Amino acid sequence: MSKNFLIGIVGGTGYTGLELLRLLLLHPQVKIHTIASRSQAGQPISDIFPGLENYPLFFEDVNLKKLTACDLVFYATPHEVAMGQAGELVKAGVKVVDLSADFRLKNTTVFEHWYCQHSDPELLQKAVYGLTELNREAIKTAQLIANPGCYPTSIQLPLAPLLYEGLIETKGIFIDSKSGVSGAGKSLSVGNLYTENDENFRAYGVAGHRHLPEIEQELSHFADEAIQVTFVPHLLPMTRGIESTIYCQLKEGIKLTDIYQVWQKKYAQEDFISIRENTPPATKEVRGTNRCAFSAVIPQQRNTLVISSVIDNLVKGASGQAVQNMNIMLGLDETLGLGQIPLLA
Amino acid sequence: MSKNFLIGIVGGTGYTGLELLRLLLLHPQVKIHTIASRSQAGQPISDIFPGLENYPLFFEDVNLKKLTACDLVFYATPHEVAMGQAGELVKAGVKVVDLSADFRLKNTTVFEHWYCQHSDPELLQKAVYGLTELNREAIKTAQLIANPGCYPTSIQLPLAPLLYEGLIETKGIFIDSKSGVSGAGKSLSVGNLYTENDENFRAYGVAGHRHLPEIEQELSHFADEAIQVTFVPHLLPMTRGIESTIYCQLKEGIKLTDIYQVWQKKYAQEDFISIRENTPPATKEVRGTNRCAFSAVIPQQRNTLVISSVIDNLVKGASGQAVQNMNIMLGLDETLGLGQIPLLA
Amino acid sequence: MSKNFLIGIVGGTGYTGLELLRLLLLHPQVKIHTIASRSQAGQPISDIFPGLENYPLFFEDVNLKKLTACDLVFYATPHEVAMGQAGELVKAGVKVVDLSADFRLKNTTVFEHWYCQHSDPELLQKAVYGLTELNREAIKTAQLIANPGCYPTSIQLPLAPLLYEGLIETKGIFIDSKSGVSGAGKSLSVGNLYTENDENFRAYGVAGHRHLPEIEQELSHFADEAIQVTFVPHLLPMTRGIESTIYCQLKEGIKLTDIYQVWQKKYAQEDFISIRENTPPATKEVRGTNRCAFSAVIPQQRNTLVISSVIDNLVKGASGQAVQNMNIMLGLDETLGLGQIPLLA
Amino acid sequence: MSKNFLIGIVGGTGYTGLELLRLLLLHPQVKIHTIASRSQAGQPISDIFPGLENYPLFFEDVNLKKLTACDLVFYATPHEVAMGQAGELVKAGVKVVDLSADFRLKNTTVFEHWYCQHSDPELLQKAVYGLTELNREAIKTAQLIANPGCYPTSIQLPLAPLLYEGLIETKGIFIDSKSGVSGAGKSLSVGNLYTENDENFRAYGVAGHRHLPEIEQELSHFADEAIQVTFVPHLLPMTRGIESTIYCQLKEGIKLTDIYQVWQKKYAQEDFISIRENTPPATKEVRGTNRCAFSAVIPQQRNTLVISSVIDNLVKGASGQAVQNMNIMLGLDETLGLGQIPLLA
Repeated sequence: MSKNFLIGIVGGTGYTGLELLRLLLLHPQVKIHTIASRSQAGQPISDIFPGLENYPLFFEDVNLKKLTACDLVFYATPHEVAMGQAGELVKAGVKVVDLSADFRLKNTTVFEHWYCQHSDPELLQKAVYGLTELNREAIKTAQLIANPGCYPTSIQLPLAPLLYEGLIETKGIFIDSKSGVSGAGKSLSVGNLYTENDENFRAYGVAGHRHLPEIEQELSHFADEAIQVTFVPHLLPMTRGIESTIYCQLKEGIKLTDIYQVWQKKYAQEDFISIRENTPPATKEVRGTNRCAFSAVIPQQRNTLVISSVIDNLVKGASGQAVQNMNIMLGLDETLGLGQIPLLA
Repeated sequence: MSKNFLIGIVGGTGYTGLELLRLLLLHPQVKIHTIASRSQAGQPISDIFPGLENYPLFFEDVNLKKLTACDLVFYATPHEVAMGQAGELVKAGVKVVDLSADFRLKNTTVFEHWYCQHSDPELLQKAVYGLTELNREAIKTAQLIANPGCYPTSIQLPLAPLLYEGLIETKGIFIDSKSGVSGAGKSLSVGNLYTENDENFRAYGVAGHRHLPEIEQELSHFADEAIQVTFVPHLLPMTRGIESTIYCQLKEGIKLTDIYQVWQKKYAQEDFISIRENTPPATKEVRGTNRCAFSAVIPQQRNTLVISSVIDNLVKGASGQAVQNMNIMLGLDETLGLGQIPLLA
Repeated sequence: MSKNFLIGIVGGTGYTGLELLRLLLLHPQVKIHTIASRSQAGQPISDIFPGLENYPLFFEDVNLKKLTACDLVFYATPHEVAMGQAGELVKAGVKVVDLSADFRLKNTTVFEHWYCQHSDPELLQKAVYGLTELNREAIKTAQLIANPGCYPTSIQLPLAPLLYEGLIETKGIFIDSKSGVSGAGKSLSVGNLYTENDENFRAYGVAGHRHLPEIEQELSHFADEAIQVTFVPHLLPMTRGIESTIYCQLKEGIKLTDIYQVWQKKYAQEDFISIRENTPPATKEVRGTNRCAFSAVIPQQRNTLVISSVIDNLVKGASGQAVQNMNIMLGLDETLGLGQIPLLA
Repeated sequence: MSKNFLIGIVGGTGYTGLELLRLLLLHPQVKIHTIASRSQAGQPISDIFPGLENYPLFFEDVNLKKLTACDLVFYATPHEVAMGQAGELVKAGVKVVDLSADFRLKNTTVFEHWYCQHSDPELLQKAVYGLTELNREAIKTAQLIANPGCYPTSIQLPLAPLLYEGLIETKGIFIDSKSGVSGAGKSLSVGNLYTENDENFRAYGVAGHRHLPEIEQELSHFADEAIQVTFVPHLLPMTRGIESTIYCQLKEGIKLTDIYQVWQKKYAQEDFISIRENTPPATKEVRGTNRCAFSAVIPQQRNTLVISSVIDNLVKGASGQAVQNMNIMLGLDETLGLGQIPLLA
């Protein structure tokens, strides 16, 4: 097959940029036209990532001309970069998938509360939220995708259909999420050092994490009412993987089979969703893959539903879902380049 | 100082037995009189634990005569061993601390549901539950201590005073606990292998874990009403440490300062309790110590209280608390032998 | 592409069997016709490996009829299984790749010293040693491949050409190898438990490891004289990866550029060999891939050459090299199904 | 016991400073008079190290007056700090233990080659090398101790007596060392990040590591001739622990029993040395302790001796040995405050 589509990556030196490389270099239909990194311009990618020596690509400075020559551009940059550049690309007809949070929150006041003032509120309204399985139709024709956060992806996939179908109460949702350290990115802080995380586990961001408004915005949409949840993230002593344990209240008369029936109806045909009965999934079962696996239990036949949901934060939680969205936007088979089998050992 | 008290350990080859050795060998007032292990009888302890070569002890077969010569005997055995032997020791005037679950559940029907038929229901009623800070008076005169489970210890210490003082609702308590792999013991199963746990995280026992009835029994006691909680344990890719994130509903008008006031009142004088404001504690901060550290947050000023509580599962969650109870039962300073500073790095 | 070749796997539940599944299920030209496991016969593979739920295969009992219907059969069994079964398959015209040690040592006396009496010495003489880059021509027409050990693979690839070309002394070779725990397999022993390996590192098998005679046999072949080496393996607190640091003496007048020149001449066209200048490779750079990467340094301009060589023990050290050999034996492109990019994060 | 000696620590926020705190806060005879950190002056130590909340100490600016009031001052600073300050303290009669490399190399030309110009060459000549078991007499009367490097400690303890007694050849010594990540300190670099080290292993500093001249200087001293060794350090995916595997050539006629006899003669009375027969020691067996454990094997009855030596890099490899030296310098029992039992699980 010839590689028909030209792709740009802005911000290629972090962990989501690296993961985009891992997926796109093997993708049968796309070609990386430019990978931009101000700090590493001129360096071969294998100087930063020695395992990629078979791929003779070089980091370049951000080059608008090369970016506008692309069919699609990924932003794997810190917040506030994409919102300054995406408008021009979109105007030039280039499709954009932003892996940062810049276009995730529709309400600019909320955005400003959690991040900063938004510099392109007009474009923000046109951005399409890229949780693929829940928003596929809009993604097909989108020019700009706000790729979802890692925690929100693991949470919405099991929860959204249950709220939409009215199987659970909209009050009393508690979400206890745990993430591998790669989710914190490659920034140099004491908290990211090996010795601080090895053999260690802790809650963080309890008073408020930036993914909370994203979770509430999207769940409210599916419930068709304003929803507030309690969301507590934790840091795991491992590199990849998110597990979210979600506690919610069943509406009267709802049984476990109803839950599974709704999930089956919604997801039976989905390539990247694993509905697990009996044993909750382990993060290793989706490591390196674009898959989300989840299970449900009603402990002790009481009224609480416990969902356990796992993803690889760098794949379905970031770069994998970004590629999935790219496939859809470019009219390709959605699973292209995403057929990885997990490294179970 | 002369070492005045003779101590026996039954079941010294597992991880809680090993941890008893680590603590008791340096304890200034006790001497290990016999350490029993059927499978290793005759072996020097340093054959099993090479780091203990300075201590010339030998595993022995279980020897009732030597055990009855002790002032106090620890059972660090699988379930069903202590309930068959403790009676005889107690009759002989020997104090017993059982680290297994044999004497934790007062209701024999409940015990049978989760474990097996109880072989000494009479003795069961005399056993004193050994969560030291919550039951110190009874421990002082106890002949037989049911040393608490690891998860229940991390949960009750912060929760019990809040229930007792009526600050939180007795309904709607969700407990999301995470434990290092040493909590699963040294048994040979695929689930305990290195490769199965490294870089992996998973929920387990969602439908029902044996610590659930223990948690509910004790919390009900403090709330003075029957309490049901949702409890989900998880397995962490590390050796030691438990973190429990607890979600509960504040009674009307209760503020965060009320929570901290109750904790201060209850625990300000306690040597092994760290009340943390602001940042939730990390498990590493109590590693190797007998300490329990916890914090509270009311996220987004809504109505839910989020507690994060950490212990070392092998110390405060098992052998350390057992030694703390021993100190009390023998009339010693409660902190003797328990002054460890954590290995933060 | 239609999948043209039928493949059998005997012993599919261990880590090398699992890794064969990971590679073969995505291979474009082969189809798994039977996967045999006595202990799990009748179970879907996803019951043992939940991440493989998209692949509706079932473990079967060892079935000679199904095996003889295959084009090629892999043995991913403990020692002594393949030597009892391979003869019959070979007679039936089935190609066999044995991942165990049964056919690696040509000298039956040596084999018996390290393992047991060999039950098929005749077939042993026909077996071809499957270190692909060093033995490709013989592999093309082989009926039975003795797939190399993991340590020997990491050692021979850099060393063999240097011995063959006479650049280093044949005496004074010291090999210090380190392996992830998956190399020890999935057997239930205390030494394989999580808690025994986490945060731990140790030498083992110093007095003699079964890979020593394999290393000496093969290096002697390339040096054209009997070679004795010192080989010490160690166990790393991680799942995958081997690093071998090799110390050897340069022959008079040999410079670092000579070393690299020989490597370039031998390996420049090889798809799975990375010759690294400057920085020694890290195991993560080959994780999940069939690649071997190595570097050379002459510290302080003295006379000792230090080689650092890395592989993924489950891929190039076992199942990946087995698939590479399969590709050659079946007349396929050698790289088919082996194009993985490492999980650098 | 009253705490009779006043101690100062300069540079208390790194991992060796933290480890000094862990050891000294429980030491029965010393009191920390000042702990200096420019960056954290005014902060309680528990703000940086939350596990130390029971100890109400505050970081202070470096205060010469307070330091000169101390009996002994530790430097746990980066290189180049101690050499600028120690002279003044020594003049004031304060004893100094420098954990950095500033006073380890006697030859200023060598020092300059590996570090920088030495600013106090006169004092350098008076410094006593603090490898306690090998230099105890000189330490007793020293004013200034150059505390040894971590790798050199693990290497010299087993090797020095063999060289001194002439049991091994002085040529052909190969040292393959592996260290936990805490050895690299707390500095913010990509190489120290969690994700870069987790599930990873690599050689580094092959061309030349700063501990090489220290090792050669000291071994030459014991051999009474100039010795050159090959030394290759590696980085382990764990926090604490060093293992050095040392390959050397036996002099003619020397047997394994001769090796053990020399070690027994030298070390039988030592509290912190474990001579292991049979199985090589694991790093976990000395974790958190001031112990060095080592074993010797002559593989295959050939002529090469293989030594495996383990220490905890932060204890015997740094702060523990510093406290051991302090005890000697202050006329205290050498083992005071150093009786820890390892965390085997």
